[in-house]
Amino acid sequence: MAGAERRRSTVWGKIRAVRCEDVKEWCVRRLPILEWVPIYDWKENLVPDAVSGMMLAIQQVTQDEQTRGAGYLASGQSQPTPGLAFAALSSVHPVFGLYGSFFPVIIYAIFGMGHHVATGTFALTSLISANAVERLVPSTGTNFTANNNSGVLGLSEFEMQRIGVAAAVSFLGGIIQVAMFTLHLGHATFLLTEPVISAMTTGAATHVVTSQVKYLLGMKMPYISGPLGFFHIYAYIFENIRSVQLEALLLSLLSIVVLVLVKELNEKFQRNIKIVLPIDLVLIIATSTACCYADMEYVYGLEVVGHIPQGLPPPKLPAMNVLSEVVTEAFGVALVGYVASLALAQSSAKRFKYTVDDNQEFLAHGLSNVIPSFFFCIPSAAAMGRTALLYSTGARTQVACLISCALVLVVIYTIGAMLYWLPMCVLASIIVVGLKGMLMQFRDLKKYWNVDKIDWSIWVTTYMFTICFAANVGLLYGVVCTIVIVIFRFPRAKTLNLKNMKEVEYKYKTEENCESLKQVKIVTVSNPLVFLNARKFHADLMKIIQKDGTSSQACEDVNKCEQNTLLCSFSNGSCHGESLQPCQSEQCVLILDCSGLNFFDYTGVSMLLQIYMDCKNRHIEVLLACCKASLIKAMQYGGNLESENPIFFESVSSAIDASQIPRKYSKFSEQSEV
Amino acid sequence: MAGAERRRSTVWGKIRAVRCEDVKEWCVRRLPILEWVPIYDWKENLVPDAVSGMMLAIQQVTQDEQTRGAGYLASGQSQPTPGLAFAALSSVHPVFGLYGSFFPVIIYAIFGMGHHVATGTFALTSLISANAVERLVPSTGTNFTANNNSGVLGLSEFEMQRIGVAAAVSFLGGIIQVAMFTLHLGHATFLLTEPVISAMTTGAATHVVTSQVKYLLGMKMPYISGPLGFFHIYAYIFENIRSVQLEALLLSLLSIVVLVLVKELNEKFQRNIKIVLPIDLVLIIATSTACCYADMEYVYGLEVVGHIPQGLPPPKLPAMNVLSEVVTEAFGVALVGYVASLALAQSSAKRFKYTVDDNQEFLAHGLSNVIPSFFFCIPSAAAMGRTALLYSTGARTQVACLISCALVLVVIYTIGAMLYWLPMCVLASIIVVGLKGMLMQFRDLKKYWNVDKIDWSIWVTTYMFTICFAANVGLLYGVVCTIVIVIFRFPRAKTLNLKNMKEVEYKYKTEENCESLKQVKIVTVSNPLVFLNARKFHADLMKIIQKDGTSSQACEDVNKCEQNTLLCSFSNGSCHGESLQPCQSEQCVLILDCSGLNFFDYTGVSMLLQIYMDCKNRHIEVLLACCKASLIKAMQYGGNLESENPIFFESVSSAIDASQIPRKYSKFSEQSEV
Repeated sequence: MAGAERRRSTVWGKIRAVRCEDVKEWCVRRLPILEWVPIYDWKENLVPDAVSGMMLAIQQVTQDEQTRGAGYLASGQSQPTPGLAFAALSSVHPVFGLYGSFFPVIIYAIFGMGHHVATGTFALTSLISANAVERLVPSTGTNFTANNNSGVLGLSEFEMQRIGVAAAVSFLGGIIQVAMFTLHLGHATFLLTEPVISAMTTGAATHVVTSQVKYLLGMKMPYISGPLGFFHIYAYIFENIRSVQLEALLLSLLSIVVLVLVKELNEKFQRNIKIVLPIDLVLIIATSTACCYADMEYVYGLEVVGHIPQGLPPPKLPAMNVLSEVVTEAFGVALVGYVASLALAQSSAKRFKYTVDDNQEFLAHGLSNVIPSFFFCIPSAAAMGRTALLYSTGARTQVACLISCALVLVVIYTIGAMLYWLPMCVLASIIVVGLKGMLMQFRDLKKYWNVDKIDWSIWVTTYMFTICFAANVGLLYGVVCTIVIVIFRFPRAKTLNLKNMKEVEYKYKTEENCESLKQVKIVTVSNPLVFLNARKFHADLMKIIQKDGTSSQACEDVNKCEQNTLLCSFSNGSCHGESLQPCQSEQCVLILDCSGLNFFDYTGVSMLLQIYMDCKNRHIEVLLACCKASLIKAMQYGGNLESENPIFFESVSSAIDASQIPRKYSKFSEQSEV
Repeated sequence: MAGAERRRSTVWGKIRAVRCEDVKEWCVRRLPILEWVPIYDWKENLVPDAVSGMMLAIQQVTQDEQTRGAGYLASGQSQPTPGLAFAALSSVHPVFGLYGSFFPVIIYAIFGMGHHVATGTFALTSLISANAVERLVPSTGTNFTANNNSGVLGLSEFEMQRIGVAAAVSFLGGIIQVAMFTLHLGHATFLLTEPVISAMTTGAATHVVTSQVKYLLGMKMPYISGPLGFFHIYAYIFENIRSVQLEALLLSLLSIVVLVLVKELNEKFQRNIKIVLPIDLVLIIATSTACCYADMEYVYGLEVVGHIPQGLPPPKLPAMNVLSEVVTEAFGVALVGYVASLALAQSSAKRFKYTVDDNQEFLAHGLSNVIPSFFFCIPSAAAMGRTALLYSTGARTQVACLISCALVLVVIYTIGAMLYWLPMCVLASIIVVGLKGMLMQFRDLKKYWNVDKIDWSIWVTTYMFTICFAANVGLLYGVVCTIVIVIFRFPRAKTLNLKNMKEVEYKYKTEENCESLKQVKIVTVSNPLVFLNARKFHADLMKIIQKDGTSSQACEDVNKCEQNTLLCSFSNGSCHGESLQPCQSEQCVLILDCSGLNFFDYTGVSMLLQIYMDCKNRHIEVLLACCKASLIKAMQYGGNLESENPIFFESVSSAIDASQIPRKYSKFSEQSEV
């Protein structure tokens, strides 16, 4: 009894151990932070991570200004109310960009698998969510309640409504991503080919640049969106070209030139000097100080960022009542954000030799959209600029991101308010220069042209769709177009590899003692056989058989036959006068080596059966070698194979052996025995 | 001079001749009637064609009654106005069914390529166009203008409106088919797999049966359509089960039993007796006569067909003003009609060994919808029943159809009026029994289950979609579903055929005079390399290489190495002590035989480049043999192949030869020379 109990307890212990193992494994799989934190090499990695984190924090604040700018400015903050009113209004929102570079980063560090993926506010997703914000809470003059600071953080009700909508987009986008995670749609990312992603991101970058043109020129402009909105914006700008503010234009040009130059120099001397000059930060500090002391806001009427509240807000539900109205934008945010981030994670994984689970990334990005949406965050994703910075400054793990988080927190509590005087046009310049890398993808066009003209045209048309409509429309078009093209290319691809075709000829003695020629063709089927290529397979095989027919006809001419024997090493003097008998055409055997027939569908199987019947009508014997069990079963059920003789063989050699027995005659003799 | 002129005139003559040839060829290709009429064998074919044509005419009239019934009855002729009013209303329309079996048949005989394809009114397309008719000209009681015979053919304005809408659907459907012909979409029919077509036609047949149930039961019922309308109809019937007219029910049951029995007997004795008993016609004559003499229309309140006008109408434009409102139905008619007809044409072509051009069929059906739409015809297509009749009665060419046309013309001018007394429930019985073949396709389910479970589930879901929504929705779902499944099956299929993998091992002498082992793996790539299978290709190849790595590690153990030499016939005593040097791992060569790499896209090429780089990092040399010129060009442009040594070879053997030269050393020696 005691033994039994002990045994039972051991069993229980085992089960518990197994369960613990399972739970642990599951946790590590779903919480990758548990995998790398215990083995984190403090001595070796902390210093580069800390340096990298500091650099990131600087870029987070400035780039967040950027992307916050992108999201914020594009979301229609260009109210027609001028001067102080505008400054007062736009002084509210940017803080949400700072939150957006704090909360999602922490979540991604816990759930994400990319070591160098820096999440946070992202230009493209901000641009998409701006659509929803502008539609649901339009910025008309009547909403001007800037001084009516009633809500949380000292922000107006209007601003709270706007962030509510943006957070709702983030929330629903995250929910969609988590849903896609549970549906294992992460494994469907092979549909997103490089040309499509490249074209979509380039198109989206073009949109962001377009949204910043008004700030670069210092123009007042209504919010324009919708299909072909891109062209309407430029049309509006050219119509109102006289209202360009020269001070803003000059400051923008100066900023852009300085940024581009310094960044080029940075890249050039990066190998020698490890620490990059944070030109964005320098420019922000310099222009803010200048703007403050020269009082440019009032003297020249330059737009500035304005008041930024301090501290973290208490959590609050996103605007749940608008969820149904932001479905389109949420899908756009979910897909575009995921695609852009995944591309970065994969390139990081490829570069530093680790693996990224496509599906786990869906979970990570989903959660870093859902949870921060309760903290007034706009949709987040990984940005190329920040990730590239992590590469170049030598970051090793997500610790760099966490360190930058801590520094962003410091900015939120202390320095944020100092950004009041930052001119909008400088911010726009930083955004535009930051997108340089994405816009440079135009250079890929030459590569695509040389590699595959079709991929080139997919790139161009996807870009056009993205420009004319939106990033999500472009992405959808690109994916559908890629699939349609491959579907229509497949039926034209050769199905039979003629290199693998062998011909065997040998003579055999019939019962009438007349020597006859037997031709055996061995064809290897190496493709899947589905509805896409079934007809082509039939046509290809018929071509081979017809060649066969003509060659056997040609063989009736003895001279030609001799040439054939020279060519065919297997035929051992088969060109006797006897082979010219009319019975010769009955001696053709076709062996299909199906070892490479990976998978098939109903159309494929019925095509195989049709080939069997067609060949039978032409008096050609068809033998199938190396078939999978499922294929044999399917063919036996699918059609009424007249099974006089076996047609399925385990190997090509056994099929050849079987074909060497003169079957018709053996069958006759069997019948005569019965 | 004269010679030059003569030469010139000969050249002109040649050009003219070529042009004439071209025009002639084009005509024959587009007007297949020109191909078979000149070679028509009057002696041999006329008799069977004439017999078959007569049988077809009988079935045309009765089946046209059917399909006309299907289109007409389903299109909402079940007005709540009872008795005489209903009879008077429904006495108008059926003649359009007769026209529909006259005009399209002639057009198809000119443009169509199927020898046994009998076009005309078709249940499925009639059902789809009924949707449009019912929506745009609803049959409310107020439209009761039966005696107000103002228009052409002695028909009411209301009837003329209705046929105008149906003709508009036919017109637009035909235009869509012709447009698809010009876009060469006929070649896209490989997307329509057998399970999808089978499920769609079975579902549509179920719909037609459902639309006839009210006539079988003699019930009055409003027109029900829309999503899930199928279930609403049966719900309505069960709710109003008490209003079943017993006389109609009995007559229906009797008709169905007689029809099924006689048809079974016909099939059984068909081989003995060539002429089939036209039971449909017999039944129609018998019941009409009985109905007339017993005055059942008044005594029992049975619905009858009613007045049928005589003669052909003058042409009239279809209702062009409703074209934009019938786009959905037109697309349904165009696709469903084409698909059903093509399946019949192809099976006829397969059976009688001729070819059918998918695209030409689009033109033929398009024109036989467009032109007859000016003659009050409802949408047409080929019907299975009539085509099967042509098979069984031994028709040879479209002459049979033309003969039947002439007989239908006789019916239109003389006998049509005699159909006044035909009870509706008999008509419905004929329709239901006529659909037996289509409904029997349920038996295919077992076949699909055995051949491919996925195709089975596509069948079932497509059927469900067709039942719940409509035939065109089901067709769309089926096609999309098939594509999506093949797209997701492809990435899992094996990309490398391990059977074609060869391993060659040989020793070579390094300059240090130490013998070393060189392993050469030859892998045949036989699939296209596109975004669908690029990742799997990479994984498969890495698996092979890792096996390679482990085997070379294992080879460091001398005992195991000896076992290896036993297995590998190419290694000639390579297991010397020298081979245990660490330099050994550098001696791996991977030769990819790309002769079967049919086509590729950008993703495929970049994956090949990545494999090249990955292998380089593992000190494995990759050589590509038998590449297409386009692939070589793409790879050279696509990546920076460090071309120390050539990596492209014309054949596998030359690649093996090249790999036998100890390249690293030869390179070093070259450098030392410089």
